Amino acid sequence: MEILKQRILQDGKCPAEGVLIVDSFINHQLDTQLLMEIGVEFARRFAYSRANKILTIEASGIAPAVMTGYCMGIPVIFAKKAKPCTMDKALQSQVHSFTKNIDYNIVVNSEYIKPGDRILCIDDFLAYGSAAESLIDIVDQSGATLVGMGFVIEKSFQEGGDKLRKRGIHVESLARIEELSNKCIKFCD
Amino acid sequence: MEILKQRILQDGKCPAEGVLIVDSFINHQLDTQLLMEIGVEFARRFAYSRANKILTIEASGIAPAVMTGYCMGIPVIFAKKAKPCTMDKALQSQVHSFTKNIDYNIVVNSEYIKPGDRILCIDDFLAYGSAAESLIDIVDQSGATLVGMGFVIEKSFQEGGDKLRKRGIHVESLARIEELSNKCIKFCD
Repeated sequence: MEILKQRILQDGKCPAEGVLIVDSFINHQLDTQLLMEIGVEFARRFAYSRANKILTIEASGIAPAVMTGYCMGIPVIFAKKAKPCTMDKALQSQVHSFTKNIDYNIVVNSEYIKPGDRILCIDDFLAYGSAAESLIDIVDQSGATLVGMGFVIEKSFQEGGDKLRKRGIHVESLARIEELSNKCIKFCD
Repeated sequence: MEILKQRILQDGKCPAEGVLIVDSFINHQLDTQLLMEIGVEFARRFAYSRANKILTIEASGIAPAVMTGYCMGIPVIFAKKAKPCTMDKALQSQVHSFTKNIDYNIVVNSEYIKPGDRILCIDDFLAYGSAAESLIDIVDQSGATLVGMGFVIEKSFQEGGDKLRKRGIHVESLARIEELSNKCIKFCD
C-alpha cells in the first residue's frame, strides 16, 4: 500500500535498530483519513473471505479494525487486556509483549464469537507474532473459523509472519519492512 | 439520536440500578455502521466548532472518536493509560474510575496538543465526569482551547454533565439517560 509506505518513510521514527515508532499517525495520534484508506484496502484484500466478524486487540488495533469493519459491513470485537467484572463467560489467552517484556491476558466475551462465525483478525503490528497467536487461540477456543489476518505493518525480519504463513493462514500486511535502522527503512516489495 | 436510543432499549443490559452494559454494540463488540452514524451526528453537532483535533481515552473512546474524526476530516489523539517508554514529554492527569474504584493516570505525548489547537473531546460514557475532567486538565496543561465535549451516552442522573455545563463547556450527548433500572431505561428527551 504505497501511501502507507510513503507515510512511514516520512513520519515513522526509528530510535533503535528494529524499533519503529508510528505514534504520529497510527498508534497515538491517528490519521483518520489514512485509517479509512487502510480499511478500504483490507476490505478489498479480504473481500473473498466471507468474514462475518473482525477480531482485534485494544487499544492500537481498534482504529484499523473499525474502519475495515465499516467497509466490510461487519462488526468488530476487541479483546480486552483486563476482564471486566461484568463479563461472565470469557475466552482468555496469554500474550507475551517483547517490547515491554511482560505477559498479559487478553479476554473476549464468549457470547460474541461462536462456532459458525468466520473471523478476520486485524492488528496494527506483526513482529514476533505473540499477539497474533493469542488471537488465533481465542478463535480456536470459540469453535469459529479463522479466515485471515491483516496487519497494518509487518516487521518481516522478525518471525511472526513466517510462522503464520507456514500454518497456512492467509496473512496480508499493508507495509512489510525488511530492514529497519536509523539509517534505513527498507520495504520488502 | 433516535437510532441509538432504540438500540440501547433493544440491546442494552442493566444488571443493577444505575449500571448500563452496551458491550454488544459500543464497548466490546462494535457495531461499525452505528458507530459511523454516531460519527456523522457528532460532526454535525460540532460542525461550527472549528475543532482541528479530537482527544479521547483508550480503549472504548477510540471507535466513536475515529469515526467523528473521519467525518470532520481531522486527526484523533487517544490518551493512553500507561506511559510508553518511548514517550519523552508527556501531559498527565489522574482519573478516578467509580466502576472499578481505582485511580489511574492518562498520558498524552505533548507533541500532539499545542497552544493554538482547538480540541474536541469525545468519549463513550459521561457519568460522574472524572475521565472528562482529566481530558480537560490535559487540554489546559497543553495551552490548547477546548471547543466542546461529545459523549455517546450520558447518565444524566449522575453529576458529570451538570458539572461540565456549569463550567460553560458545550456538551453534546447522543443519548441522555434519566433513569436506569432493570425495569426501566428512560431517556431525558
